[in-house]
Amino acid sequence: MIIVGEKINTSRKSIADAVKERDAEFIGEVAQEQAEAGAHYIDVNAGTFLEQEIDSLCWLVEVVQNEVDLPLCLDSPNPKALSEAIKHHKGEAMINSISLEKDRFQALLPVITGQPCCVVALCMAEASMPNTVEERVQVGSNLINKLTEQGFPLEKIYVDPLVQPISVDTRMGAAVLGAIQSIMNDFPGVNTICGLSNISFGLPMRSLINRNFLSLCMKAGLSAAILDPTDKQLMATLLSTDMLLGRDEYCENFIEAYQSGRISML
Amino acid sequence: MIIVGEKINTSRKSIADAVKERDAEFIGEVAQEQAEAGAHYIDVNAGTFLEQEIDSLCWLVEVVQNEVDLPLCLDSPNPKALSEAIKHHKGEAMINSISLEKDRFQALLPVITGQPCCVVALCMAEASMPNTVEERVQVGSNLINKLTEQGFPLEKIYVDPLVQPISVDTRMGAAVLGAIQSIMNDFPGVNTICGLSNISFGLPMRSLINRNFLSLCMKAGLSAAILDPTDKQLMATLLSTDMLLGRDEYCENFIEAYQSGRISML
Repeated sequence: MIIVGEKINTSRKSIADAVKERDAEFIGEVAQEQAEAGAHYIDVNAGTFLEQEIDSLCWLVEVVQNEVDLPLCLDSPNPKALSEAIKHHKGEAMINSISLEKDRFQALLPVITGQPCCVVALCMAEASMPNTVEERVQVGSNLINKLTEQGFPLEKIYVDPLVQPISVDTRMGAAVLGAIQSIMNDFPGVNTICGLSNISFGLPMRSLINRNFLSLCMKAGLSAAILDPTDKQLMATLLSTDMLLGRDEYCENFIEAYQSGRISML
Repeated sequence: MIIVGEKINTSRKSIADAVKERDAEFIGEVAQEQAEAGAHYIDVNAGTFLEQEIDSLCWLVEVVQNEVDLPLCLDSPNPKALSEAIKHHKGEAMINSISLEKDRFQALLPVITGQPCCVVALCMAEASMPNTVEERVQVGSNLINKLTEQGFPLEKIYVDPLVQPISVDTRMGAAVLGAIQSIMNDFPGVNTICGLSNISFGLPMRSLINRNFLSLCMKAGLSAAILDPTDKQLMATLLSTDMLLGRDEYCENFIEAYQSGRISML
């Protein structure tokens, strides 16, 4: 299971303040704690900064990679910001994200085919959010085909089925699970990724619902998730699910995480 | 999801004491609290009493059905105890359990075909526990075929794939999940059931692992579980999984359980 640490996002006030003040120490600490908790990629997102987004994102790339020896997930809806940020990145970044929206696809294609990288491909066409399994699978398949036709490697594509709240439509959980299962089945070698927290919007006990949804997504075949790896309860769910699915030889990772205090029940 | 309340089992000391003293009030309370927590069946098991098992089981049936208006799950490896206990039962009992062991099958068959009831069918042949998905599916299919050939209704069979500890063999989780999926797929209308706690034997954070396993089993198609319905964290997992799988219209059951305090995160 590939973990993308989500905490460096200017939609969080402490991060926005640190970016504004160019507080490299604080950002470095947030990167470090996620790396120690088991992140494989560190997400950086300065989307709330609008005109200052590009400068801020480039600064974040430098600061985070000075601190931790991990690739980053460069997170922006703006192809220009992504194409600038990747110039500052060492190694193979994850680009988050491309979609089937025409302008976005065209603008980002040369960036991602110009250098080795992974890409998050959102199941979204022309700004309409998908509802059913079929809509997700159709847009996802379309994106996979278009990217691989351009020579982009299948195994570097991370399809994001886009999670929507079950409080708005109770079919939204099953729609994501079905889409993950179908895409992983139809394109062996491709990856799937999602954020979790949208699923529980508007409901009580959100962190419980999010954890539980992660587990169900993993059973459906999800290969990566954007989450907070310092959340010990969430990580307990992730590692116990891996173990229950037979992916943790001798239950070693689970027991080691328990003994080192990286997971918890409370 | 059908819930069988597991608490009235003489392997628990408080229950053993109450049965020994014929303390109907205490047993009645344990039945009542499970009914209020959402049990559809109340399991009664006096297996530790050996020679006194039959008398004790018959007494339990009377006492519990005096207290709650629910069918019982009559739980014994001994066909004689089951055939006596069912004489005291009002309505349609769940008989737990039959297996492919020859003597057990032959002795129990007339009991379960002699009156309307459900039966738990263990994936076990001649006292050998199953290891792989295939072994479970083979024994389970065999049992389903033998029972339905005798006119026993498919939808009243609850196949139990038999949960074994992942600490002993890390493939044991996936083996149960695969067996549930396969049996539910091959015999539309049949039910599957299991107890959870064996899965986590020998590991830390057992209740977390059990909860998580329940959720994965539900995704695989499990239709019933033998569990403690007064465990508010376990029930939170059960109800949120139902909701995430799209089986809780308007998220009504989950929200109602939250508001009434029947589920909890801690």
